[in-house]
Amino acid sequence: MNYKLTIAYDGTRFLGWERQPDQEWTIQGKLESVLSRMTETKVDVIGSGRTDAGVHARAQVASVRLETTLSPEEIRDYLNRYLPEDIAVNEVRIASDRFHARYNALGKTYRYTCYTGAARPVFDRRYVTVLEGTPDVTAMRQAAELLVGTHDFRSFCGNTHMKKSTVRSLDTIRIEENGPRLHLYYHGNGFLQNMVRILTGTLLEVGFGRLAPQDVSDILAACDRSLAGPTAPPQGLCLMKVDY
Amino acid sequence: MNYKLTIAYDGTRFLGWERQPDQEWTIQGKLESVLSRMTETKVDVIGSGRTDAGVHARAQVASVRLETTLSPEEIRDYLNRYLPEDIAVNEVRIASDRFHARYNALGKTYRYTCYTGAARPVFDRRYVTVLEGTPDVTAMRQAAELLVGTHDFRSFCGNTHMKKSTVRSLDTIRIEENGPRLHLYYHGNGFLQNMVRILTGTLLEVGFGRLAPQDVSDILAACDRSLAGPTAPPQGLCLMKVDY
Repeated sequence: MNYKLTIAYDGTRFLGWERQPDQEWTIQGKLESVLSRMTETKVDVIGSGRTDAGVHARAQVASVRLETTLSPEEIRDYLNRYLPEDIAVNEVRIASDRFHARYNALGKTYRYTCYTGAARPVFDRRYVTVLEGTPDVTAMRQAAELLVGTHDFRSFCGNTHMKKSTVRSLDTIRIEENGPRLHLYYHGNGFLQNMVRILTGTLLEVGFGRLAPQDVSDILAACDRSLAGPTAPPQGLCLMKVDY
Repeated sequence: MNYKLTIAYDGTRFLGWERQPDQEWTIQGKLESVLSRMTETKVDVIGSGRTDAGVHARAQVASVRLETTLSPEEIRDYLNRYLPEDIAVNEVRIASDRFHARYNALGKTYRYTCYTGAARPVFDRRYVTVLEGTPDVTAMRQAAELLVGTHDFRSFCGNTHMKKSTVRSLDTIRIEENGPRLHLYYHGNGFLQNMVRILTGTLLEVGFGRLAPQDVSDILAACDRSLAGPTAPPQGLCLMKVDY
């Protein structure tokens, strides 16, 4: 049977989603290890996409084929009993036989959270990136408008040797101020390696006046990673939703 | 000059508010150590009250006399630069010479948070107490009404050798359901040792049907700690506000 899993994780302690040889602390690796124990066979968990080391997820989606007599709720409870406390499986559902978490993903929502308060954030300190000073949000929104659309995002791709197409459609960038927290929401049909973090790093360069809003159009057109801003740190990033 | 400090902390790593000889990890101890370094003299930080090991605060209040030429904002920034990442000083203000954080406290608000979801809470797992099952909130509210008022709370005091008065006024207990999170808010003029945790442990006994709501009146009247419920774990508790 094929199953769809919805998974939340605090990425702080993990090397990222993707399993790695001889590395225990990956999310895919932890899921596969518990499910292999449950079914007593080798299990392949397919995520909607990879997340980097230190990046979080509120609703990552994975598909997995399992031979088991357990109900979906029992699978969920088994996972939650044996997974470490920073991974939770919020839902297990029976999926159609053809469902594939990566190939069938139509869109994704990411949120990047910055913190601009005078005192440090105590309770969500693992989930925000602390900024020195307050960026100009109006300038950031102007730049964001120029990034939205279907473009070659090669300048915003962490893999500079990427051979496949780097064209993606970024539908929206929504920037919300919530007290000392600044949230950047990104929705698109797919994201390149480090793309959200490089977009955020570039928008923050605009926010702090080191780039003008219209500079981002030139950066997009140049298809040159070295012209975009720095890769923003991982802990502010969270995968919020995957559309199917 | 006398100062009023407003402090947030994640109590997870700490042995509690109160300084202890040869123990580095207390909140009072950390504050005194940074302020002593700043002023190059011994410093006494007076909290509105102690919090137990593992208990959090969003707005603990302290008073402290300091000899310094720094402005309140500079003191705040100095503290936030040198304190560990799980303590933040959100405000430093000049206080009247007679202001005393403990003696002048008129009331306090505590919040106790339980989690009843099927999957574990990933992002706030250090700030909630996970329950097995869902308690009957209506029964808990009935019991809570019987606890509100001015009573001898000896049955709800963790120090069974307490010589001073154990009479306190508990103005309100508000129980709010927020999805899988159950918040118990307590406001009163003062709280005995472990009082909020024992009240919570007792209300949960009612919620799970091991006590009837009206039993709490007998427990109050008996002035006997052994009749009340268990002391609920510390991580769900947070000091939210101190009134002056």
